[in-house]
Amino acid sequence: MKHINSQQLSNMPDRYRACLINSLSGFKSANLIGTVNSQGQTNLAMFSSVFHLGASPALIGFITRPHSVIRHTLENIKQTKQYTINQVSEDFYLAAHQTSARYLREDSEFTKTGLSEYYIDAYNVPFVKQSRLKYLLTLRDIVPITLNDTQLVIGEVTDILCDEDAIKSDGYVDIEALNSVSISGLDSYHVSTRLSRLSYAQTGSFPTKMNVDGKIS
Amino acid sequence: MKHINSQQLSNMPDRYRACLINSLSGFKSANLIGTVNSQGQTNLAMFSSVFHLGASPALIGFITRPHSVIRHTLENIKQTKQYTINQVSEDFYLAAHQTSARYLREDSEFTKTGLSEYYIDAYNVPFVKQSRLKYLLTLRDIVPITLNDTQLVIGEVTDILCDEDAIKSDGYVDIEALNSVSISGLDSYHVSTRLSRLSYAQTGSFPTKMNVDGKIS
Repeated sequence: MKHINSQQLSNMPDRYRACLINSLSGFKSANLIGTVNSQGQTNLAMFSSVFHLGASPALIGFITRPHSVIRHTLENIKQTKQYTINQVSEDFYLAAHQTSARYLREDSEFTKTGLSEYYIDAYNVPFVKQSRLKYLLTLRDIVPITLNDTQLVIGEVTDILCDEDAIKSDGYVDIEALNSVSISGLDSYHVSTRLSRLSYAQTGSFPTKMNVDGKIS
Repeated sequence: MKHINSQQLSNMPDRYRACLINSLSGFKSANLIGTVNSQGQTNLAMFSSVFHLGASPALIGFITRPHSVIRHTLENIKQTKQYTINQVSEDFYLAAHQTSARYLREDSEFTKTGLSEYYIDAYNVPFVKQSRLKYLLTLRDIVPITLNDTQLVIGEVTDILCDEDAIKSDGYVDIEALNSVSISGLDSYHVSTRLSRLSYAQTGSFPTKMNVDGKIS
């Protein structure tokens, strides 16, 4: 195995180190965050840092960088306190990736990439119509991460929209059947093949394989 | 599409809501965190919340819950300030899942699950021998998330061990070739198939597909 030490890490060219370090954490989720500012201008941005934080209350987190193209997302969320998260599937992963281009504030990434806005109830915050699993959140907290000047944005899920067939009897959503993609590194997109679901781990026995419905197969 | 509102969310049975909410963020990384306490007792625990936080410095985060079986991990990290993160691959995902059983503190999950300890240099913190991409971290910060009493643990990567063939010319690591797995929901494990790498997004053109080496294919 190759052993890279801290001296070699610090001497790497920035782009090489960014590719390498971005590969370390494993597969990342692929999500589009939809927002609108107080003037009604919509925005859509790709994030690979959306993660589960808790089920009760239902909390989802993501990381923002201060000086990046995704700054409009955070500004809009601070203004309206609401946003949508939309899982990216194989059908539109190129358009999703394209939202990370440096469009001007007055350009909506929806128009520029061919994705469609979708609205529910009386809310003016845009979902991505093409997404097969998406949800609305209310901002709950912004936690500064002083070490590298990033921020952890935490929202509470209030409404979920999902293809009904994908929701299994125990609440598990078969996101593989939705063709949801994952990301590795900075720019690699993947679809998945299920190995199995596994039973709750207990001392004294090894896990049992379960089918997608959570039943012993 | 099925629309689940906040009233329906709060009325769900806990286990159903946990399955559902854990599916929302998309695919999660699968990693084993290796630690040792000041008495030399090793510990190994499965995490699906490891994520990339920054490349320069190389920072990786993960979320801990206070009253779970993973409490030994955090206690050990506080004592020794070091830990390893080990990507889980198809070969040993059952053993990796099994580390989440509630073993006693005096039992090492290595012994109980059949995974092997591996050490480098003079460090006494254990890697997982079977893992094909793993790294050593030094604790840099523990950020409390007061909303739900969890904590964000942040470490800086100091040493990386990786199958040399998987490291491409631009620093990208082909974790698909390592058979690294991803997780959906609480307990579903997946391998991947690459759709493509995509070129850096620029206004005025759509992304171009690249091969695994980051070259236009």
